[in-house]
Amino acid sequence: MNIGIFGATGLVGKEFLKLLDENHLNIKFNKLRLFASESSIGKKINFRNSNLIIENYNDKVYSELDVLILCTSSNVSKIIINSAKNYDCLIIDNSSAFRFDKDVPLVVPEINGHLIKNNNIIANPNCCTALLTLVLYPLHLKYKINKVIVSTYQSASGAGQKGLDELVLNATESYPIFGRQYLYNVFSHNSEIDLHTRYNDEELKIILETKKILNSDIKISATCVRVPTIRAHAESIHIEFQNETKLNDIRNILNNQSGVIIEDDIENNEFPEPIKVENKFEVMVGRIRHDLSDDSKKSINLFLCGDQLLKGAALNAYQILNLGT
Amino acid sequence: MNIGIFGATGLVGKEFLKLLDENHLNIKFNKLRLFASESSIGKKINFRNSNLIIENYNDKVYSELDVLILCTSSNVSKIIINSAKNYDCLIIDNSSAFRFDKDVPLVVPEINGHLIKNNNIIANPNCCTALLTLVLYPLHLKYKINKVIVSTYQSASGAGQKGLDELVLNATESYPIFGRQYLYNVFSHNSEIDLHTRYNDEELKIILETKKILNSDIKISATCVRVPTIRAHAESIHIEFQNETKLNDIRNILNNQSGVIIEDDIENNEFPEPIKVENKFEVMVGRIRHDLSDDSKKSINLFLCGDQLLKGAALNAYQILNLGT
Repeated sequence: MNIGIFGATGLVGKEFLKLLDENHLNIKFNKLRLFASESSIGKKINFRNSNLIIENYNDKVYSELDVLILCTSSNVSKIIINSAKNYDCLIIDNSSAFRFDKDVPLVVPEINGHLIKNNNIIANPNCCTALLTLVLYPLHLKYKINKVIVSTYQSASGAGQKGLDELVLNATESYPIFGRQYLYNVFSHNSEIDLHTRYNDEELKIILETKKILNSDIKISATCVRVPTIRAHAESIHIEFQNETKLNDIRNILNNQSGVIIEDDIENNEFPEPIKVENKFEVMVGRIRHDLSDDSKKSINLFLCGDQLLKGAALNAYQILNLGT
Repeated sequence: MNIGIFGATGLVGKEFLKLLDENHLNIKFNKLRLFASESSIGKKINFRNSNLIIENYNDKVYSELDVLILCTSSNVSKIIINSAKNYDCLIIDNSSAFRFDKDVPLVVPEINGHLIKNNNIIANPNCCTALLTLVLYPLHLKYKINKVIVSTYQSASGAGQKGLDELVLNATESYPIFGRQYLYNVFSHNSEIDLHTRYNDEELKIILETKKILNSDIKISATCVRVPTIRAHAESIHIEFQNETKLNDIRNILNNQSGVIIEDDIENNEFPEPIKVENKFEVMVGRIRHDLSDDSKKSINLFLCGDQLLKGAALNAYQILNLGT
């Protein structure tokens, strides 16, 4: 099996490469090839004691690859997929380009991994959506979600290396990516805003992708906010179920969910934090409690954190690769 | 009128002193005296070209003062009020000590300022609550709130000078106040957690104080989170009303609310940010939009920012002083 990573020099591409290097799921592959935009062509990247050289891509390469991992923008993913789809490749796309194509499954392996077989193109969800759905899914199975209201606390890494640099390196000078001071500040997500609904693109992704992944027309509302953190996202989540809930049962359900760990120590005030999940595979969930205003005990609040470069992107793609080959 | 500020060297005390110095409401007063804990006694603080000396306080001073501004902890406020309440003083207490005493009004002047007259003790609300209620109040009058779900993004200054120092000065060393790294991190509010409800004290304050200030048993749920910002808080707010809403009308209502300004520019992605409201009197509100999942248009989302040391504390107390004298 020959694997090509497209956009190999970006934050997600690098994480995917690291996952392939460590290869904890022991995926068998022969050749690994790296592709990126023109400015990176010819650069060497060390991988398992050999140097991989960043290549330019053209339509010929698709016949030489069995798997395409796209860590590219939507526009670039569209161009690559339109050319590559005629070849017998598995394409795993991290961008939003095909997430709502009815023939393209949108996959979080723990939820709907069965959709991977028999499909050549698999879409990897938005970072916040992947973290959110992994926590919602087992609870929805048991109690049936009526409505979700989520407010996010999103890190700089979601805007790539340049966004990260703007927080960490250049924090008191100019702001070409975000257009405003990031350090010691909080601001509405920097994605484009739909002038009709007044929601930004990130919020609409969460709303629409969650329904597709859960395969359920649940009600969901989202507010996406950037906070000055490095690489893990947090989400404050209110869930209203159709049925009465028991907290112990919710804890058990989440405890049994693969990919989720609970951090909910009310005696020591230890709950999920971005720095606790950096470089971790699991989504951390805590602050599990009933909404005191709902006497029927159908509503709860949760707080989660997850590494958006891992389960929110590269790890989820790597898990899809494992199931798809 | 002789005014005494207790806890004059803390963050809120200093802001109150600055407000009295600028005195934009032109409150008439004669003597100003400053009190603080033992470690500050004898220190000089410059006020209008003279030096005020920080004094120790004892039961004698209450007979010499007409107004007591308490910028003290709950425990200290209780001690002072229990001694001072027998004197003919107006006491404005920033702590939570008497906020739920049925004889003590909890006041945001724009909402229930009429309660100040004929009461000697006035409680100043929790910082998040003051900002939140000022936005909820005019909307509740028009559309009747059914339920509010709020997630906060709270700054370091809410934990006083030492909390602020832990973020800004000492960010990579030890963490005596918060017990964890603050810079580049987000964590559940550091107040005590009620082991029965699993809510922290800050969340319970928002829930209970909002009902008292709005004089209405609305449903409300809160999640309080610290983010690495300096002095202004942010809140992501979901409101479900009893009646169908119109966005233009909501904008007009908020635009006409004294103390509120709207920042809601969807074309340029300019919305409320903590750094935009630092040292500002107004609560800034934006991201005003319908919840897309509610076809009845009874639900909206909002995002607000406000200087928690000003409208969230010292400014609100200063406004109470103005109405009470």
